Amino acid sequence: MAKVKKQPRPKAEAPRGFRDYFGAEVTERTAMLARIAEVYHRYGFDALETSGVETVEALGKFLPDVDRPNEGVFAWQEDEDGAWVALRYDLTAPLARVAAQYRNDLPFPYRRYAMGPVWRNEKPGPGRFRQFYQCDADTVGAPSVAADAEICAMLADTLEAVGIKRGDYIVRVNNRKVLNGVMEVAGILDPADPSKFEAERGIVLRAIDKLDRLGPEGVRALLGEGRKDDSGDFTKGAGLDDVQAEVVLGFIDARRDSGAATVARLRELVGASETGRAGADELETIASLLDAQGYGPDRVLIDPAVVRGLGYYTGPVFEAELTFEITGDDGKPRQFGSVAGGGRYDDLVKRFTGQEVPATGVSIGVDRLLAALRATGRAEAQAEGPVIVTVMDRDRMADYQAMASELRTAGIRAEVYLGNPKNFGNQLKYADRRGAPFAIIEGGDEKDRGVVQVKDLKLGAEIAESATLDEWKAQPAQFECPRGDLVATLKERLTR
Amino acid sequence: MAKVKKQPRPKAEAPRGFRDYFGAEVTERTAMLARIAEVYHRYGFDALETSGVETVEALGKFLPDVDRPNEGVFAWQEDEDGAWVALRYDLTAPLARVAAQYRNDLPFPYRRYAMGPVWRNEKPGPGRFRQFYQCDADTVGAPSVAADAEICAMLADTLEAVGIKRGDYIVRVNNRKVLNGVMEVAGILDPADPSKFEAERGIVLRAIDKLDRLGPEGVRALLGEGRKDDSGDFTKGAGLDDVQAEVVLGFIDARRDSGAATVARLRELVGASETGRAGADELETIASLLDAQGYGPDRVLIDPAVVRGLGYYTGPVFEAELTFEITGDDGKPRQFGSVAGGGRYDDLVKRFTGQEVPATGVSIGVDRLLAALRATGRAEAQAEGPVIVTVMDRDRMADYQAMASELRTAGIRAEVYLGNPKNFGNQLKYADRRGAPFAIIEGGDEKDRGVVQVKDLKLGAEIAESATLDEWKAQPAQFECPRGDLVATLKERLTR
Repeated sequence: MAKVKKQPRPKAEAPRGFRDYFGAEVTERTAMLARIAEVYHRYGFDALETSGVETVEALGKFLPDVDRPNEGVFAWQEDEDGAWVALRYDLTAPLARVAAQYRNDLPFPYRRYAMGPVWRNEKPGPGRFRQFYQCDADTVGAPSVAADAEICAMLADTLEAVGIKRGDYIVRVNNRKVLNGVMEVAGILDPADPSKFEAERGIVLRAIDKLDRLGPEGVRALLGEGRKDDSGDFTKGAGLDDVQAEVVLGFIDARRDSGAATVARLRELVGASETGRAGADELETIASLLDAQGYGPDRVLIDPAVVRGLGYYTGPVFEAELTFEITGDDGKPRQFGSVAGGGRYDDLVKRFTGQEVPATGVSIGVDRLLAALRATGRAEAQAEGPVIVTVMDRDRMADYQAMASELRTAGIRAEVYLGNPKNFGNQLKYADRRGAPFAIIEGGDEKDRGVVQVKDLKLGAEIAESATLDEWKAQPAQFECPRGDLVATLKERLTR
Repeated sequence: MAKVKKQPRPKAEAPRGFRDYFGAEVTERTAMLARIAEVYHRYGFDALETSGVETVEALGKFLPDVDRPNEGVFAWQEDEDGAWVALRYDLTAPLARVAAQYRNDLPFPYRRYAMGPVWRNEKPGPGRFRQFYQCDADTVGAPSVAADAEICAMLADTLEAVGIKRGDYIVRVNNRKVLNGVMEVAGILDPADPSKFEAERGIVLRAIDKLDRLGPEGVRALLGEGRKDDSGDFTKGAGLDDVQAEVVLGFIDARRDSGAATVARLRELVGASETGRAGADELETIASLLDAQGYGPDRVLIDPAVVRGLGYYTGPVFEAELTFEITGDDGKPRQFGSVAGGGRYDDLVKRFTGQEVPATGVSIGVDRLLAALRATGRAEAQAEGPVIVTVMDRDRMADYQAMASELRTAGIRAEVYLGNPKNFGNQLKYADRRGAPFAIIEGGDEKDRGVVQVKDLKLGAEIAESATLDEWKAQPAQFECPRGDLVATLKERLTR
């Protein structure tokens, strides 16, 4: 072997924008995804796991918002044939490839779910990483809005299954076709020549998408001449007159007290537009299908104010919001907000086969939903540290290992301290760091007397915090127990 | 938006060497990993999930067997600063980086487990993919062989937890230090000048590593002058004389009837070598620690014939083998073989910090273990298809959805057929493809009479296969049941 030149030490750092997840950060997410998978499975969805790498050709035009090819993905050339491959940026593009590649073998409609990391070559920011999880469910090849209704019901079931209480969430449903109808009425969409007014419609879509941030007045300005933002930058508007703008604004403000009233209002707005009426019909069908299964407007609601994704989807659009309040960064309470979104889209498989295949699906924001579970104390912790069996006598390691083994057999997480046992203080410091509930001590004296010392570290911490002398005397944080009773004693204390 | 030029259709193909996993292929693996994680957790190991991307600098010299930098990994340059990053090729290199990066924050000894995909830029072959799963558990910062013994016990528990019966596996333990002692005795390792005979030792290590494939005679040839293989290629040997070769061969043949006898034989072989005696002591300690916890030689066995990894590890080396027989590619029965391996290694963190940190760990071959569970029918299937509610009347979709919803609420996997319902034959074909146990039919007539038709598709397939007319009459594969009894009827049939 050639001798290696002495090199400077490498930096021990994750690459910029990537992070590490420790302990409960991993297990809580795993537990949540397992619960989600269980619901998806029960709905007849099958798991699909594609690899992280796809050909650039199959990935297609990359992120919806980005024009330049290759922008936003991590790509490289294969050594052998120079083919470009890239890390997947979402789970939909691989689904499209799979639905095309296996079109003769898969059962259609193909219901599939997928969970896993995706990668984005974007500037990292606070809480914004270049690898993160997605969790999608899609139905490919089902033209009926029954498929959309099913996704909405499943989304509601999923949220409840992971621990979001009924009443703490709402799935809102809108429809791109209704918006198209509204744009026909506003005179910026001509069914006979869809290429006309493309620029105006683009501005309208982008304006509507900013409803949350700008409010109705900001959107109105963008529908008209344009708008100067706080920094003084001017954004050109769509140039609609007041009457036109009123029609468009009427759409996002069309929600009424009942689903039926909302649909009636939408019918007014779309007038004679065939597309618009089809969209209103679809919303009505979805609502009635869901009603029949017991998913009333307390869980799934027709709401034309759902605007995210209207530019991307082609029919029904859904969004799940958590309605309970959390404390925002500014210290004020605010609604938790969106944790999932989806809708119906065409052209999924068409890029590959030329054949149009209808598809509808939903994507859960894994990190956001997990944050919500943590905020409400509903993440499945599994975070308790192990019982630490300390080492008082190096030569009796076998006894300590056997003790830990006994505890584990009884289902108690346990380990022997395996660092240098010389300094007993270090052993207790380690137990603290591990969040251990108990440390077990068995020195020569205890061994002779057939007992062990148990340090209740949680209680010890509480006592150190606040206990009076009497309380401390009444329930000492360290006690002795017969060696034979150790498992039973810890078991009892751990479950109370 | 700029108009897009018409381009040829992209190929719907995964990149060369990457594959897709469907349905049970995914869920069986997930279930197996969950069981493994449970055991690791109980042993006090904490989850760690690093991202798929690391700096090339942190990854270091890449795969153990490869000399050229960058060889074997997928690497690319960052847009902004030109830094090289790469997909991880195993889970040990990221652990080294994490142990160094967080050395002041982590509790040491740091017990961690990790599960996830790794990537290798290698020529794909049959059953050999460029992305695959690894599942590792390591203890960093524990110098004592008690840590090695713990890994061996945990490995045995893990195999039983996933469904390998006791008696169907064995964890074999060897020690690199003993081999070093043997090489001292054979005169090819001089403790005073370890750089001498490096080439010879390299050849010896590679020769031993081929024991499985070449047998003792082949190894003996490689220890001596060399060996011509079947294709006529000559491999140069280490040039040992017969006496020297006998010592080395004595090592891999040192297993005796009991652990004590094996250790005694090893002590003979290593003579006065200090390193060799330390290695024998370690094996003895591991065996006695495990004995005390009830892991006898029926589960964990000292066996100097374990040669894989001896070139890589620095102390104890372990390998888990499944001992039951399967039918090999040649139609002959053979042992299933290795499913996990590991050992003790130094220098894990040293590259980054200059400080030597001892570490020991094990890696389970996820695909091999899963194949073993499938071979023995012990993979957790979750493979049953959903009950298919067929659509006889498009306008009654809400009823069908409600029916599926009812079944799901009772815990039965169920879905409504969402393709074009016109051709009923297609609905049944779909149910077949999904592996559905039942198809439910409720036309207008059934609706009026308050009943549903249930097609038992599994039974139907059996009958089509082999039933006599009488059998067919006695237990028809299609029957009618009151609508109100549907859930109870299916539940009863599914569990029997």
